[in-house]
Amino acid sequence: MELDLKENERLDDLQQNGYKIIQNSEIFCFGMDAVLLSSFAVAKEGYKVLDLGTGNGVIPILMEAKTKAAHFTGLEIQDINVDMAIRSVAFNGLENKIKIMLGDIKEASSIFGGASFDVVTSNPPYMNENHGLVNPDSYKAIARHEILCTLEDVIREASKVLKDKGKFYMVHRPQRMVEIFETLTKYKLEPKRIRLVHPYVDRAANMILIEAIKGANSLLKVEQPLIIYEREGIYTEELYKLYKWYE
Amino acid sequence: MELDLKENERLDDLQQNGYKIIQNSEIFCFGMDAVLLSSFAVAKEGYKVLDLGTGNGVIPILMEAKTKAAHFTGLEIQDINVDMAIRSVAFNGLENKIKIMLGDIKEASSIFGGASFDVVTSNPPYMNENHGLVNPDSYKAIARHEILCTLEDVIREASKVLKDKGKFYMVHRPQRMVEIFETLTKYKLEPKRIRLVHPYVDRAANMILIEAIKGANSLLKVEQPLIIYEREGIYTEELYKLYKWYE
Repeated sequence: MELDLKENERLDDLQQNGYKIIQNSEIFCFGMDAVLLSSFAVAKEGYKVLDLGTGNGVIPILMEAKTKAAHFTGLEIQDINVDMAIRSVAFNGLENKIKIMLGDIKEASSIFGGASFDVVTSNPPYMNENHGLVNPDSYKAIARHEILCTLEDVIREASKVLKDKGKFYMVHRPQRMVEIFETLTKYKLEPKRIRLVHPYVDRAANMILIEAIKGANSLLKVEQPLIIYEREGIYTEELYKLYKWYE
Repeated sequence: MELDLKENERLDDLQQNGYKIIQNSEIFCFGMDAVLLSSFAVAKEGYKVLDLGTGNGVIPILMEAKTKAAHFTGLEIQDINVDMAIRSVAFNGLENKIKIMLGDIKEASSIFGGASFDVVTSNPPYMNENHGLVNPDSYKAIARHEILCTLEDVIREASKVLKDKGKFYMVHRPQRMVEIFETLTKYKLEPKRIRLVHPYVDRAANMILIEAIKGANSLLKVEQPLIIYEREGIYTEELYKLYKWYE
């Protein structure tokens, strides 16, 4: 298939099913967070999956390759990202499996209705301190800071659109873990399984992967730590298995 | 100093300052939990420290050796443990540094008054499912199950007896982390630093070490994982440094 890349865009190989993805380093490039979340999340055969704040669509595209879920929807508020995501989906021939929609996370349950998905994924903005931002309406600032939606918006809408016992997967910063747990349980999403991501085995965690189940009982499993580097420049075996092409 | 051991008692070497401790495998022997908590907890020079549910006094005795805190108090509800703890304190010549008291955690703030300690430690009963216990009034069942006090009792009383910005250190099970965080913040104890303890680097966590600060802001640090075994029978370097004599 032909593809006209726009200014500053490039086409990256996802090393999954031959899929490729359009990126723009001025606007949006996915990070390791999205890759780790796509691997952590479980979507069974026939499931309907929603990704809240899908950016250039990386999570639905990776999960389409890795799972047998029936259909993915990616919701994204920035039209420049929606445009990239739609072209990537088409380039990979996935129009029947992935639908990218322009829209606001805060209105997800109005857009899709309640109890309409089996799984929700999200790699939301991590930072809640926006004061001092030089350019708060930049594309990257909106993806990284809670400018257009808060953690609570994401969790509330995820809970509403999930079916009973549906699963919510999120990647976030461990610094906010207490608030994350509190907000999840407020909206009846019970944290059931987490992994802490550490750059090295002897360093503090810098990411957390969370599985929460709507309406479940409270019993948390803290899985083995996910270690990124064996030593400087050398990934751990788990990371090499996950992908060899990052950075 | 002479010491008359009672039936089934033994005297174990703590490998700290030459201190020894009386144990009784029928009644109470401390576990790795207590040792890890004693190492994780920080008590500065001059501090007053309270250990809630002190058992045979292992945490105050270890922390007396490792820190410059001014004074330790150990509160314990089972008189047979209090008796062991008092004799161990005396045997080590620590009567001026460690006071062991018979009493109920649920009444700690009545016994000691509010805002009376800089640091509180606790290795409380982990298990909240007591149904099915063959012998719920056995010494070990009381130490391990929430028969005479609940998680909330421990946290509530810790918060009351702590000064503003005082620190609470607890070891518990990661399965209950969500409830632990919720209860801590309910009583104005903000989780600030945790370590997950994994038997091996590729296994789920089976303990959590928590530092919470009374009245602090919310920002959590998840420190490097604490791994017990390098491989079967071989401790990691960190564990060997911590103690060579366990089990």
